[in-house]
Amino acid sequence: MPHIENNEEFKGLNVNDGVEQPPIINPYRKSRIKKKELTVNDYVEGIISGNRTILSQAVTLVESFLPEHHAVAQEVIEKCLPYAGNSIRLGITGVPGAGKSTFIEALGTYLCNKGENLAVLAIDPSSERSKGSILGDKTRMEELSVAQNAFIRPSPSAGSLGGVARKTRESIVLCEAAGFNTIFVETVGVGQSETAMHSMVDFFLLIQLAGTGDELQGIKRGIMEMADGITINKCDGNNIEKAQLAKVQFQNALHLFPMPESGWTPKVTTCSAFEKINIDEVWNMVLEYIRFTKKNGYFDYKRKQQSKYWMYETIDEYLRTSFYNNPIIEKLLTQYELKVNNNELTSFAAAHKLLDIYKDL
Amino acid sequence: MPHIENNEEFKGLNVNDGVEQPPIINPYRKSRIKKKELTVNDYVEGIISGNRTILSQAVTLVESFLPEHHAVAQEVIEKCLPYAGNSIRLGITGVPGAGKSTFIEALGTYLCNKGENLAVLAIDPSSERSKGSILGDKTRMEELSVAQNAFIRPSPSAGSLGGVARKTRESIVLCEAAGFNTIFVETVGVGQSETAMHSMVDFFLLIQLAGTGDELQGIKRGIMEMADGITINKCDGNNIEKAQLAKVQFQNALHLFPMPESGWTPKVTTCSAFEKINIDEVWNMVLEYIRFTKKNGYFDYKRKQQSKYWMYETIDEYLRTSFYNNPIIEKLLTQYELKVNNNELTSFAAAHKLLDIYKDL
Repeated sequence: MPHIENNEEFKGLNVNDGVEQPPIINPYRKSRIKKKELTVNDYVEGIISGNRTILSQAVTLVESFLPEHHAVAQEVIEKCLPYAGNSIRLGITGVPGAGKSTFIEALGTYLCNKGENLAVLAIDPSSERSKGSILGDKTRMEELSVAQNAFIRPSPSAGSLGGVARKTRESIVLCEAAGFNTIFVETVGVGQSETAMHSMVDFFLLIQLAGTGDELQGIKRGIMEMADGITINKCDGNNIEKAQLAKVQFQNALHLFPMPESGWTPKVTTCSAFEKINIDEVWNMVLEYIRFTKKNGYFDYKRKQQSKYWMYETIDEYLRTSFYNNPIIEKLLTQYELKVNNNELTSFAAAHKLLDIYKDL
Repeated sequence: MPHIENNEEFKGLNVNDGVEQPPIINPYRKSRIKKKELTVNDYVEGIISGNRTILSQAVTLVESFLPEHHAVAQEVIEKCLPYAGNSIRLGITGVPGAGKSTFIEALGTYLCNKGENLAVLAIDPSSERSKGSILGDKTRMEELSVAQNAFIRPSPSAGSLGGVARKTRESIVLCEAAGFNTIFVETVGVGQSETAMHSMVDFFLLIQLAGTGDELQGIKRGIMEMADGITINKCDGNNIEKAQLAKVQFQNALHLFPMPESGWTPKVTTCSAFEKINIDEVWNMVLEYIRFTKKNGYFDYKRKQQSKYWMYETIDEYLRTSFYNNPIIEKLLTQYELKVNNNELTSFAAAHKLLDIYKDL
């Protein structure tokens, strides 16, 4: 597992495991970080020189819930910022069963063979329960997990969507500063994580399956309209005809949507991640989009918008959390919801009564 | 203009004008309300007895920016709540040019002729500038504006989207308590007002035009997925074939979307509002939806969810407004945005620095 060589932390834990483990749930590992007592400069220099062990420790720091880690992490990220940004950030989503892991293995290996440095991250707020439900299935990433120039890190393993997303976004900065020029961000296709992902990637790829029935029911409404490209996976064997038909159907549907702000018309391709067919075509679509948006200025514009978005999103989330996590408000909220439900109080009166109580606390 | 008969306020102002005028910008009218000094009970009794003049004054009260009006308005709404809710709330949107006014005239007249009591409201946060840009075009609502059982009220004429939407939602309560059993809420199809409208209506109708080109570019991404039904308007003359084709295209596209929470498969119809063709078909689609969702329980569930949504939305908006309208924060915000843009500060660090300053104010 070349990408974590010299990483003493892992020895004896997961010797044959190229996939990073969610670190927070591993108390042993946390104590090791403390022991080493790296300074901010140690972290920054290590990252910029491309030291994977230190990168991995810095990501652990970003993911930590300890306040003392948080302060150090913020300084490290800030010092890495000038070295970050020079990458293609690809968001990948699709319902469970669409073949995301196999697709990441196929596209990731393809890129690594071309000499790209690839970091694979994830946003999965549910991963606490499942202990890393995505990017955890190493059996489907056999090749990629041992590739010299790949760095795979499962989703931060706990917390609110906002918290998890923040950590993933900050890890992007660290990975880019460490020299990774291609970043994959994976998410699960069934929740709000797509909006968070959409706000941190350059290209939003939706993996779909052929068929207009049950297969599509898992994906949330609104996600299709975020996609810069769709690939119909499992276009192999008996499924080729169905996948080709689905391609046409999606293409027609996308034409009914208004043009995205980027000026780019979303494209649909077919591929077989399992058979490694047409993987290059998917990547060419991404590259074409990058060229197109760099030329018309949208690429930089979007990245700046995303930075602003996260600033405002962080503020909004903090304001909301302070209110809703207040123990007095928490208790009253159910009462007021009931009053609203029973038509005893308007939604607006209930809101203002709660706000008045909050202000006087 | 039967629906505002006995309304002395209007005499000499808009004698031949069945459409209510945005009242806030009319100082004369405000002073008249003060003079009458109706009590909360006067308002409530008047509304419940179906007195249009008093209903109209109560809506004016809801729309007022004066704090003393606000308190009275809230009491009136609360007392009307037990009499409200017994209606069909239809949201109507579409890009400018889709023929919304003509459609409302056609469907509204159709319903009035059937003996329904119809109130037509609007959400248009831009109406301050245009002094009521929607529902202002009376020439297209000649019939409806003189119908005995129709009550037409333009959008509240100023403020944030949240504020305008709140006023429209509260006006729905008043209209229902006054005996209107059909409520139209119109919006413009080009902004976030659809999300607000979606959160206050039972059925979301999108008016589209045939053609997959420029006509569609005006409508915002994500709106199509909110629709419970689409009607392709202007299906008349030379346009019939194109409209029929568009119907099939939209139907196919909608099949690619996942099933909405309601369990209802969105339908597509064609109509000509101008020629008054197939207007009944559109209404039958709405009725079918109401029957369907009342049977499976979604109708009540959604209304309760909407009430909760507005409580939380009001809280969130207040928390945000308090922060962003703080003069010190307002000044610093631009500075911090710039630092984030220049990669001097991460989005998260900037947010937390601003929040720390805010907490110490």
